[in-house]
Amino acid sequence: MRAEIITIGDEILIGQIVDTNSAWMAQRLNNIGIKVKQISSVSDDREHILKSLAEAASRADIILITGGLGPTKDDITKKTLAEYFNVGMIEDAATLANVTRIFARNNRPLLDINKAQALVPQNCQVIINNNGTAPGMWFENDGKVYVSMPGVPFEMMYMMEELVIPKLTVAFKLPVIIHKTLLTAGEGESFLAKRIADIEDKLPEHIKLAYLPKLGQVRLRLSGYSSNNAGLEQEIELFASEIKERVSDILVATEDIPLEKAIVNLIKSKGLTLSVAESCTGGYIAHLLTQHAGASKVFAGGAVVYSNALKQQMLGVKSQTLNDFGAVSEETVVEMLNGALKNFNTDLAIAVTGIAGPDGGTQDKPVGTVWIAVGSINNRALKKFTFGSKRLQNIERSAAAAFSMLNTLLKDVKN
Amino acid sequence: MRAEIITIGDEILIGQIVDTNSAWMAQRLNNIGIKVKQISSVSDDREHILKSLAEAASRADIILITGGLGPTKDDITKKTLAEYFNVGMIEDAATLANVTRIFARNNRPLLDINKAQALVPQNCQVIINNNGTAPGMWFENDGKVYVSMPGVPFEMMYMMEELVIPKLTVAFKLPVIIHKTLLTAGEGESFLAKRIADIEDKLPEHIKLAYLPKLGQVRLRLSGYSSNNAGLEQEIELFASEIKERVSDILVATEDIPLEKAIVNLIKSKGLTLSVAESCTGGYIAHLLTQHAGASKVFAGGAVVYSNALKQQMLGVKSQTLNDFGAVSEETVVEMLNGALKNFNTDLAIAVTGIAGPDGGTQDKPVGTVWIAVGSINNRALKKFTFGSKRLQNIERSAAAAFSMLNTLLKDVKN
Repeated sequence: MRAEIITIGDEILIGQIVDTNSAWMAQRLNNIGIKVKQISSVSDDREHILKSLAEAASRADIILITGGLGPTKDDITKKTLAEYFNVGMIEDAATLANVTRIFARNNRPLLDINKAQALVPQNCQVIINNNGTAPGMWFENDGKVYVSMPGVPFEMMYMMEELVIPKLTVAFKLPVIIHKTLLTAGEGESFLAKRIADIEDKLPEHIKLAYLPKLGQVRLRLSGYSSNNAGLEQEIELFASEIKERVSDILVATEDIPLEKAIVNLIKSKGLTLSVAESCTGGYIAHLLTQHAGASKVFAGGAVVYSNALKQQMLGVKSQTLNDFGAVSEETVVEMLNGALKNFNTDLAIAVTGIAGPDGGTQDKPVGTVWIAVGSINNRALKKFTFGSKRLQNIERSAAAAFSMLNTLLKDVKN
Repeated sequence: MRAEIITIGDEILIGQIVDTNSAWMAQRLNNIGIKVKQISSVSDDREHILKSLAEAASRADIILITGGLGPTKDDITKKTLAEYFNVGMIEDAATLANVTRIFARNNRPLLDINKAQALVPQNCQVIINNNGTAPGMWFENDGKVYVSMPGVPFEMMYMMEELVIPKLTVAFKLPVIIHKTLLTAGEGESFLAKRIADIEDKLPEHIKLAYLPKLGQVRLRLSGYSSNNAGLEQEIELFASEIKERVSDILVATEDIPLEKAIVNLIKSKGLTLSVAESCTGGYIAHLLTQHAGASKVFAGGAVVYSNALKQQMLGVKSQTLNDFGAVSEETVVEMLNGALKNFNTDLAIAVTGIAGPDGGTQDKPVGTVWIAVGSINNRALKKFTFGSKRLQNIERSAAAAFSMLNTLLKDVKN
């Protein structure tokens, strides 16, 4: 089964935004056995959109379209789709109710331009947008499925997860694909590959192993392909068990979840609590933990101590320590950890101090130097890292390293 | 003058990597007055590549191709280009010397598969790759220019900057394109559109206005097209000034920068400092501020107070207040703001408390209820929001709202 993705809108074509939607959609489609044949970004131009739709339909069975659904004049996707299918526009009551509800909730008057968002091509099934005013639209035409969605990533993602993917699974007879993901942290891709080379070598033809590296983490994804489900799941579990045993020291999760979510689950399973003391990561670790629902069960909060004054005041780091060893030092990170454990009264804490860059490096402590301490009063780990020169990457790597250290530490702790 | 970008390779189509090259290339092309008509990502498939080349050439004068130039079997761009132009392959001496040099430098034996990298279509002008073994190629055919480059970002970028852009500037008589972006926050796209409808209506044919919305923010982008530069910049500035004046209360920046970066610039220009007291945003505001270099000039740090205990201990929120009004209340957010200003000793602070969801809502305070307070001891703004049901979105909206409130507040403050 083949799909194409068409993104509509000038912001991608002038390079103002990077198209992250398409990669996300392609991944989701791949997971249910749909291959993406082409991704096209086209302009808000009637003829160009019409031609792209026809070209995509000549190559694929499923055409996913994002963008161009806003209320303003430059957004022409809806009327162009109506023209493509040669149908008129009608007002969709459910969409009008949704738009009205959103405006009422925000205490804003409903303008005609907003009401017009409820106009859709006659032949579409509306996909209600729970996160915005532009409706999604599902079309069936000539044995092909067309889905038009907003370009705003979270609006599109919600529609894909909740409605489009399940509906596609029903609409087409898809092959069985089973994925099993193991999340590891703290070891590079090539070392991991070497450790499990013999297991990989004996995988049968219909089971593939993919290494999906991300700063400080590697996901191992086993994918099994079959025309029917019989035995495939057990077969994959068998290989997964073998790999799990082999990499148990760096294994964080046996499902495809974010690293920080796995850490929250681990801490929760042990009935412990966590706080943070962040200097160079500047709140990023706290943000990662709190972006997932349920973090409050484990995470109390913490201090973002960008200035030295706040390191002293919020965490009790001694001015002598800062003077003698500097803010980026073993001594300071240890006092930060102690301060967090004491002041925030949690079982565990994470403390990070470093030079994220691009400025602030010295001969002794180049940009990318980061000290991390994690653990409790009696059981802790401490490590110095030398990452690279990119600020955001140094922040992300520091967070991944802190979680990885905490994971390893807690694996040795008995409940 | 029109261009198209074709990226070749399965890694984009399976969603393993996000195509960041195309946005970068599109920006560079726009800067020299070349419009990108379409960006296409296609598979390593002979027929598909041939068809895409022909389609692109039917719409554009310049076709930039990346990817598929590696030494392995699945990389077929070169021989497919030779087929497209109906020419044979020849060995390029300069490329062979480059490949030989790179292998010698790395003390690796030169295999036949690597020597083959010096084979190029007969009709191309080779662009030597200073950063890798795959050569770039410049073709002129039927009045059109085709350029094939490696997909590795820094290899492509170097070729574009050093050779392709200068060569294109010589090869074509290019029009002038000028963009001007205004960043606004705190008002929705449709209300903004209504406010400036008359200005938009009187824009001449060669100046376009685009609305680029993002949670809590809208970018207004004026794009002017002309065959020569005379007066275009002034003309755009004139319309920009008119819009700026009309939306001055919600204007954050007159350049295309992130919202939080604009706020840091604004605070810096006033010589002030900032701290945060974050409950439901959980460190996200601090993270946004600190992801940009130079934040330390303005941002001292702050408290992530997920638990009520930490609200009291780190910010001095009274237990009476939490009992009587709850953690999500006007009274609590005011005490949080006061606590941050006092304990973290900054001129300004941002305090946020709310119910990010998906759980924790009540009849009175549904999920999405957020109280935000921003400002100083003597000058502050306070507001209750009712966002939606999505956790991450509520966090992002809260941050954008806080920045927007601070922007409006500081606009009224004299230096």
